[in-house]
Amino acid sequence: MNKKRTNKKRVGIIGAGPSGLAQLRAFEALQNKGEEVPEIVCFEKQSNWGGMWNYTWRTGVGKYGEPIHGSMYKYLWSNGPKECLEFSDYSFDEHFKKPISSYPPRPVLFDYIQGRIKKSKAREYIRFDTTARWVSYDEKTKKFTLVLDDLKIDKTYSEEFDYLIVASGHFSTPNMPYFKGIENFPGTVIHAHDFRGADQFKDQNLLLIGSSYSAEDIGVQCHKHGAKSVTLSYRSNPIGVAWPEGIKELPLVTHFENDTAYFKDGTTEKFDAVIMCTGYQHKFPFLPDELRLKTKNNLYPDHLYKGIFFNKLPQLIYLGMQDQYYTFNMFDAQAWVARDFMMGTYKLPEENERRLDMDKWLERNDKLETSFDHVDFQSDYIKDLLALSDYPDFNVDTVGEMFKSWLKDKEENILTYRDKTYKSVVTGTMAAEHHTDWMDELDDSKERYLYEPEEEEAIPENI
Amino acid sequence: MNKKRTNKKRVGIIGAGPSGLAQLRAFEALQNKGEEVPEIVCFEKQSNWGGMWNYTWRTGVGKYGEPIHGSMYKYLWSNGPKECLEFSDYSFDEHFKKPISSYPPRPVLFDYIQGRIKKSKAREYIRFDTTARWVSYDEKTKKFTLVLDDLKIDKTYSEEFDYLIVASGHFSTPNMPYFKGIENFPGTVIHAHDFRGADQFKDQNLLLIGSSYSAEDIGVQCHKHGAKSVTLSYRSNPIGVAWPEGIKELPLVTHFENDTAYFKDGTTEKFDAVIMCTGYQHKFPFLPDELRLKTKNNLYPDHLYKGIFFNKLPQLIYLGMQDQYYTFNMFDAQAWVARDFMMGTYKLPEENERRLDMDKWLERNDKLETSFDHVDFQSDYIKDLLALSDYPDFNVDTVGEMFKSWLKDKEENILTYRDKTYKSVVTGTMAAEHHTDWMDELDDSKERYLYEPEEEEAIPENI
Repeated sequence: MNKKRTNKKRVGIIGAGPSGLAQLRAFEALQNKGEEVPEIVCFEKQSNWGGMWNYTWRTGVGKYGEPIHGSMYKYLWSNGPKECLEFSDYSFDEHFKKPISSYPPRPVLFDYIQGRIKKSKAREYIRFDTTARWVSYDEKTKKFTLVLDDLKIDKTYSEEFDYLIVASGHFSTPNMPYFKGIENFPGTVIHAHDFRGADQFKDQNLLLIGSSYSAEDIGVQCHKHGAKSVTLSYRSNPIGVAWPEGIKELPLVTHFENDTAYFKDGTTEKFDAVIMCTGYQHKFPFLPDELRLKTKNNLYPDHLYKGIFFNKLPQLIYLGMQDQYYTFNMFDAQAWVARDFMMGTYKLPEENERRLDMDKWLERNDKLETSFDHVDFQSDYIKDLLALSDYPDFNVDTVGEMFKSWLKDKEENILTYRDKTYKSVVTGTMAAEHHTDWMDELDDSKERYLYEPEEEEAIPENI
Repeated sequence: MNKKRTNKKRVGIIGAGPSGLAQLRAFEALQNKGEEVPEIVCFEKQSNWGGMWNYTWRTGVGKYGEPIHGSMYKYLWSNGPKECLEFSDYSFDEHFKKPISSYPPRPVLFDYIQGRIKKSKAREYIRFDTTARWVSYDEKTKKFTLVLDDLKIDKTYSEEFDYLIVASGHFSTPNMPYFKGIENFPGTVIHAHDFRGADQFKDQNLLLIGSSYSAEDIGVQCHKHGAKSVTLSYRSNPIGVAWPEGIKELPLVTHFENDTAYFKDGTTEKFDAVIMCTGYQHKFPFLPDELRLKTKNNLYPDHLYKGIFFNKLPQLIYLGMQDQYYTFNMFDAQAWVARDFMMGTYKLPEENERRLDMDKWLERNDKLETSFDHVDFQSDYIKDLLALSDYPDFNVDTVGEMFKSWLKDKEENILTYRDKTYKSVVTGTMAAEHHTDWMDELDDSKERYLYEPEEEEAIPENI
């Protein structure tokens, strides 16, 4: 990460969330071995790193008037075992120095993400409060020109790059369908992207439209934090777990009349608020459409060889654009392969061969039926990536099995699955049981999470 | 508005709100006289025209993931007499065929705005669902290149223009300061931009931060529609009208602790929701910073000769960027002058002369003290504009007097000022008294507004 502008190749990274940071870390790992790496600049719209994990109270736009990136909310606890996302080059043990539970809250995971990257000089390569405005690619020079906007000083400028890494995520731009009559619904109507915690919905009857992770998790949180009732409305299939009293599923809303929702099965019900858990769009307003990844959220977006290289122009690399069982460790596995391509040590086959490879994955993706199939598919994708770089291997099959247990745990009891513990494939450490049952834990702070009641109790009462 | 690409100059207009439509109308007026006009294309991000007056239930981003333009809300009634904003070439009489009250609700004003432009072919020149992504200016060719994004088909393209009209408004991008502890406030926290109507705040204790139009109008609406209490918090000066019971003003919030707000005067109070009426930013993410108007909201933004021509590059024209007493008729007066400049019939003085002219206005602006001073200042600005084009003259002094009466009306009784009537300077027509007192009128539809109770009563009861 030398700053001299010699003949070095230049790498531009858009976004300093888990994917962008993985890319910085990948280069750093090489540098630590004494290798020379390209000149790297990472642009981050927010004032801090962490992407989705960088919580903000704001909704709509940020202090500089840019659309808010984060969909994060208060009281968010990991909705999958942390053992499924552990960095294989930086374990939870290394970071926390003691076993912790399998389902930590956001501030604890944010701390973990930061821990790895704080040890390096990564921060020097990130330009914060800087948004990518426009990208163009010159066929002759084979370079990208990136127009940037330094929000803090309200100044635009351009820089050229040989490689462009798009690591701006795809859970930021709400997809919000129209339902007839919604414009006259008197209560709060927001997208999950703007949900910042359950408190404001206490004692309310809530309608959540959607049947994916947002609906499930926001619904359960609102139930936990005192909503009067939670109704989930699904388009095709219900989530179908054993819901506790106070949460139920109904088919899709057909329309609204004032505060009454009408459902496909003829049910009608009055609500105080509607939260649209209707997903997100892959949105890249800074890219010309011929360079844009155009895809719905799925496990293998088309046009990305190995899930990352834009097939028409592989110097354009997208990280983390898949629907995700695997997260942090998948971004790592991708970033390491991307790095080796940029270093010239990993060579791509010809475009048509890449096309054939993608087609194989897409065909298989089309045939997936159950959640277990999805897990296996993404596990195989991770294995495919791991074989291509020196990112520390981890037992993907075991992680795949953990995902399946997790799915079963949720189905059995959506309110207690976070009390279960799993074993790390990186260190072999068994997770600790948390000091408090998840349903009883209303405080999601790192301090509360890491506090050890035994020690406190051991203090003699001689105050 | 010929579509042939001959040697005609090309005019690009960003935004089809009141300002952009005024520009289309200005050219149309000339065309109706048999004159040939440049090739004009107007780009509108939304699916319909009307800008701020095009109400949407959405907040955050629109269906294509672009930031929502509108700050409009349900139950918005004009907060100034319609006689102060009347188009001098299209009267309310011409549109409604009968006298209407002085303070119509949004749908009625939207109807009026549309009425004038619907008669023409203006719609053909507007590309809807199209957002401006990036502008560059070539010193050699003297042309602007505009990168556009057709949101409907997800396609980007470029076009060149000789003149660029920025008519994208400045009440779209919230300014939202941080207050210590706001991140732990449990209730709703939104900016006025995302306020969509008072219903969801019924029976709540509301805190509105701000002391300008948004705070005043949202506060009064929430009071009218059943908020338990409304507290307005001001930074420098209170609005200071005779508030009814249920609305009060306090100095600035210093910080929050959970649901309790602490004020500068030592007061503390618990609230259910916070609405930030903290203003808007002039924001032009599609412009390089050297072409951006950089200004706070004020009556005479610097760098705009005659309030519209970007002094360094007068082919770049900004409409409606002032803080506003005058609105629709000011945009018209500006658009007519802009048109004549583009037609070559109005010549600009040299840059340094323009600088001197702006300096005079800025100096005077600096010395303004009272609201009446502000009104007089903007009246003089309008007169300055009217002298430069053939936009139909109207009695600006009388309109200035109306603004002053309106200010007094509000001070006397903020709940009844909308029941007052004013006389048109365009037609001489006295406004009708509305069939219902504003405080009793909870329905803001055009149908309800235009309904005539007398006629209904006259129907014989022989059903």
